[in-house]
Amino acid sequence: MASKVRLYVDHPLGEEQSVPLTREQAHYLFGVMRLTEGAVLSLINGKDGEWDASVEKASKKGGILLCQSQTRALQIPPDLWLMFAPIRKERTAFIVEKAVEMGAARVMPVQTDYTQSANRIRQDKLQAHAVEAAEQCGGTYIPPVDNLARLDRVLADWPQDRQLMFCDEVLIGDPVGLPALDGPWAILIGPEGGCSPAERDRLRSLPFAHPVSLGPRILRADTAAVAALTVWQQALGDWTRHE
Amino acid sequence: MASKVRLYVDHPLGEEQSVPLTREQAHYLFGVMRLTEGAVLSLINGKDGEWDASVEKASKKGGILLCQSQTRALQIPPDLWLMFAPIRKERTAFIVEKAVEMGAARVMPVQTDYTQSANRIRQDKLQAHAVEAAEQCGGTYIPPVDNLARLDRVLADWPQDRQLMFCDEVLIGDPVGLPALDGPWAILIGPEGGCSPAERDRLRSLPFAHPVSLGPRILRADTAAVAALTVWQQALGDWTRHE
Repeated sequence: MASKVRLYVDHPLGEEQSVPLTREQAHYLFGVMRLTEGAVLSLINGKDGEWDASVEKASKKGGILLCQSQTRALQIPPDLWLMFAPIRKERTAFIVEKAVEMGAARVMPVQTDYTQSANRIRQDKLQAHAVEAAEQCGGTYIPPVDNLARLDRVLADWPQDRQLMFCDEVLIGDPVGLPALDGPWAILIGPEGGCSPAERDRLRSLPFAHPVSLGPRILRADTAAVAALTVWQQALGDWTRHE
Repeated sequence: MASKVRLYVDHPLGEEQSVPLTREQAHYLFGVMRLTEGAVLSLINGKDGEWDASVEKASKKGGILLCQSQTRALQIPPDLWLMFAPIRKERTAFIVEKAVEMGAARVMPVQTDYTQSANRIRQDKLQAHAVEAAEQCGGTYIPPVDNLARLDRVLADWPQDRQLMFCDEVLIGDPVGLPALDGPWAILIGPEGGCSPAERDRLRSLPFAHPVSLGPRILRADTAAVAALTVWQQALGDWTRHE
């Protein structure tokens, strides 16, 4: 089943809006995907929903698209941040992809005491992963991906009205559930090897932090991210609740 | 933090049980991991829990380990099958890995009408992935991975006391939850592109099949697998329930 090409552009979208293409975008559309003038594709920009657009002008160095009609409204996820300690490169990229699919509003890599220093991140690459995940999975919203920040600093500047769901290896089998508190939330996925005792003491002392168990088995950080997003979306987010 | 080597062996484990090593295992333990005689490692076999064992004899071609004491009992997951249509190779391997971490008792690749024929599987490779996931994630149980089977045949031979949670793209946003029915279950993750209309009609006509929504966004099959396992384990499985 051939499906319509779906492209992210950093440009406003709207009725009869024309959209200039970069050289890279022109290469992708006309070189790789072999679109020609008159062809119709889908555009997203993370703000204006999804639009059908036609190729008005195609050249090797650029081109012009013309927006026709909106095909999907912007679907903003709930106000949920996903915080995680970077792991190996491909699994970090995977967590960003899953954050987009599962509906996180913001992605925040955090440096914990036990985060391997080898696990540096390239913010620009991770942001590009988020764009690609939205292009491929029908998303209309692209969560911003922050630069790496130290967990202790993030917690020091914490907005007091935001709850924190804290998933840590130590909680395995510990029967702790998610409190039914409305409003903004964040999820913190502990690093592989867990949080340090100092971090754990600090988190347990914070009134907005809620330890939550993800079952009796040890989960990799990428698995924990999807599982935690599922638990949160089902209990407090935009998945319809059923008893 | 150096952690103990953890190895799967196809051999009984028990008090003072000696365990002969294959050439590949000897290469891994003595060549790659540099263990020497007297070193202690963890063994699993999927049946007898986790055991500490010491290296009694090390050679290039083999060696002998001696079990000391059980460090973890066998933890059998709930009676849950995970059925999915194969996707691209690395994502299929990923689903198997996640099935082990999330506690599926059996993994069943199924051929649906829209499964790309290019997505063949190597059952032996996927079973090896399951072993590796258990080694790495502290698991003591290894779910069997079946050969690829046609979905219509699997459904024709279905055990009538087993419920089926059916997650399909068509259900996006449709508010359908998991019925609270005890006993054996299976999860079916539809292929990317969804099930065919004929498959969908058939599934909807089966008294044991329950359509379940995984939220308002389109999920890749690998994400859907983790999300569905989370929903099931939390509602009916071995994650402790909390309201």
